[in-house]
Amino acid sequence: MARSSEFDLIRDCFSTGYPAASDLLLGIGDDCSLITPPADMELAQSIDTQVAGVHFPADAPPGLIAGRALRCATSDLAAMGAVPQGFHLALTLNNSEDWFLRDLAAGLRLTANTLNMPLLGGDTTYGEHLTITIAVQGWLPRGLGLRRDAARPGQDIWLTGKVGGAALILDDVLRDPTRDDQDTAPYYHPRVHLSFGHLLLSLATAAIDISDGLIQDTRHIANASGVVMNLDAEKIPTAVNGEHPRWHECLTGGDDYQLLFTAPADARERIEACALTAGLRECRIVGNVTAGDADVCVHKNNELLVFSKEGYTHFRS
Amino acid sequence: MARSSEFDLIRDCFSTGYPAASDLLLGIGDDCSLITPPADMELAQSIDTQVAGVHFPADAPPGLIAGRALRCATSDLAAMGAVPQGFHLALTLNNSEDWFLRDLAAGLRLTANTLNMPLLGGDTTYGEHLTITIAVQGWLPRGLGLRRDAARPGQDIWLTGKVGGAALILDDVLRDPTRDDQDTAPYYHPRVHLSFGHLLLSLATAAIDISDGLIQDTRHIANASGVVMNLDAEKIPTAVNGEHPRWHECLTGGDDYQLLFTAPADARERIEACALTAGLRECRIVGNVTAGDADVCVHKNNELLVFSKEGYTHFRS
Repeated sequence: MARSSEFDLIRDCFSTGYPAASDLLLGIGDDCSLITPPADMELAQSIDTQVAGVHFPADAPPGLIAGRALRCATSDLAAMGAVPQGFHLALTLNNSEDWFLRDLAAGLRLTANTLNMPLLGGDTTYGEHLTITIAVQGWLPRGLGLRRDAARPGQDIWLTGKVGGAALILDDVLRDPTRDDQDTAPYYHPRVHLSFGHLLLSLATAAIDISDGLIQDTRHIANASGVVMNLDAEKIPTAVNGEHPRWHECLTGGDDYQLLFTAPADARERIEACALTAGLRECRIVGNVTAGDADVCVHKNNELLVFSKEGYTHFRS
Repeated sequence: MARSSEFDLIRDCFSTGYPAASDLLLGIGDDCSLITPPADMELAQSIDTQVAGVHFPADAPPGLIAGRALRCATSDLAAMGAVPQGFHLALTLNNSEDWFLRDLAAGLRLTANTLNMPLLGGDTTYGEHLTITIAVQGWLPRGLGLRRDAARPGQDIWLTGKVGGAALILDDVLRDPTRDDQDTAPYYHPRVHLSFGHLLLSLATAAIDISDGLIQDTRHIANASGVVMNLDAEKIPTAVNGEHPRWHECLTGGDDYQLLFTAPADARERIEACALTAGLRECRIVGNVTAGDADVCVHKNNELLVFSKEGYTHFRS
């Protein structure tokens, strides 16, 4: 494609059809985007990169990948309880063909509208591997954000739903990256618990989204809060039951983006009511917090389980 | 290197030694960073990606590259007149060796301190090509940001300094990417006009930083403002004089990050005083704005120059 029409296509793909941001003064097309912060709010921000061949199959449909990348990034806002404000997109394209750009943009737009995430600005570059970096942001009432360091002994540990669906379907996705059905949905379309996360603001203490594996991510709360996080394996909803040979992968595989959070026992009824309000099918107590050196202890049938690998690591050793 | 020590090294490299942000409530290590916006300010934001082998030599010292990437990204804040607040870093590493990470972090830290840019958060991933995405942000008094759409007929066009230094040294940098001296400084250490940009807030109308070529970037203002931008080639400070065979590359090559801005004639004295205050050696009127269909006209000795290529394009055709 000639350069000018390629630029036009990129502009068309990324300038219209996204949700409108009421606080956006200046969007794509200047040196910076400009927004007006509301009074008395904190700004929660996170940046997330996904690289072809590392975080997703290089031959996967670009629209599915872009939508998934936005979901994964936005999940960090849900884990803080923030109300989404929008995102900036840094896209390194290895393919600038018409169908590729249109498919990528269509998937991104669909997800942006589902999550109500305006596109505020971006940068498009060329490279050998499709790389999608998304910087998300949202607002939080002052001092109420769900941090990792606020779990306290005596509190319950909650989980929003099943874990393991994305990890167990990954081999199938790698074999056929175009497969977009109910089974691959945990991988391509993980639910982002934005409204539930926001409802938890005055109820939960610490929270994290499960992106790298239940045990590994729970350990982040244990370390930040200086507590023992006790998980009762029999209470954790998993994609396959406890006798299945791949059951343990449900606890160590990533990509489900469920919320794990802690809360005092007197918040139980209100949390269950909020889960109903947010339309969650499952939201369960899966363990409790005790005092001690920071650790995660997983029990099954009164035995302590030990995992050689607790989650996804981003580097090769 | 074993995984745990590698994670420790990354944490060490990116968690200490950066400027402190007074408005940062929560930095690296949670799902999101948290900041408190000041009252009555707008938030200016930009995201910028640099890919090894595309935007910089793949075998360049990582510290030089990281510092340069931060300068290039921060330049967008200067072009809006914003006061820097901080940045998020999305780093895709192709090398996790000790010396590589330490050199990269040292260069980034040095530049962050020079520019007073706190590191707010980030994401580190693995990939085949070193890719650095930086999301910068800063504060602007309401309504005063220097946009591209505010140039008006009758106004002067100003330029902060010489153009062409980075473009002309690029071949040398590609031959020896380790060369870090006065000649390669325009490429590796472009000056970011943060304080001058901020001083221009009540004086200039439109502004842009020259990242892709003087003519091409001037055209962005012409298009956004709907005006003719007339450049007088003889008045433009260039790295080589007008008889040099590569002189035209000074007007079309990118990477100098000078500011080009428009201002009414009655602001001339105050602009010159601000340039002195900001320690600029050169800041000159290089043309004027007239009414007409959006265009850039470059004159030299009363002849209209035509350039087959006006600047750097980010895509291969």
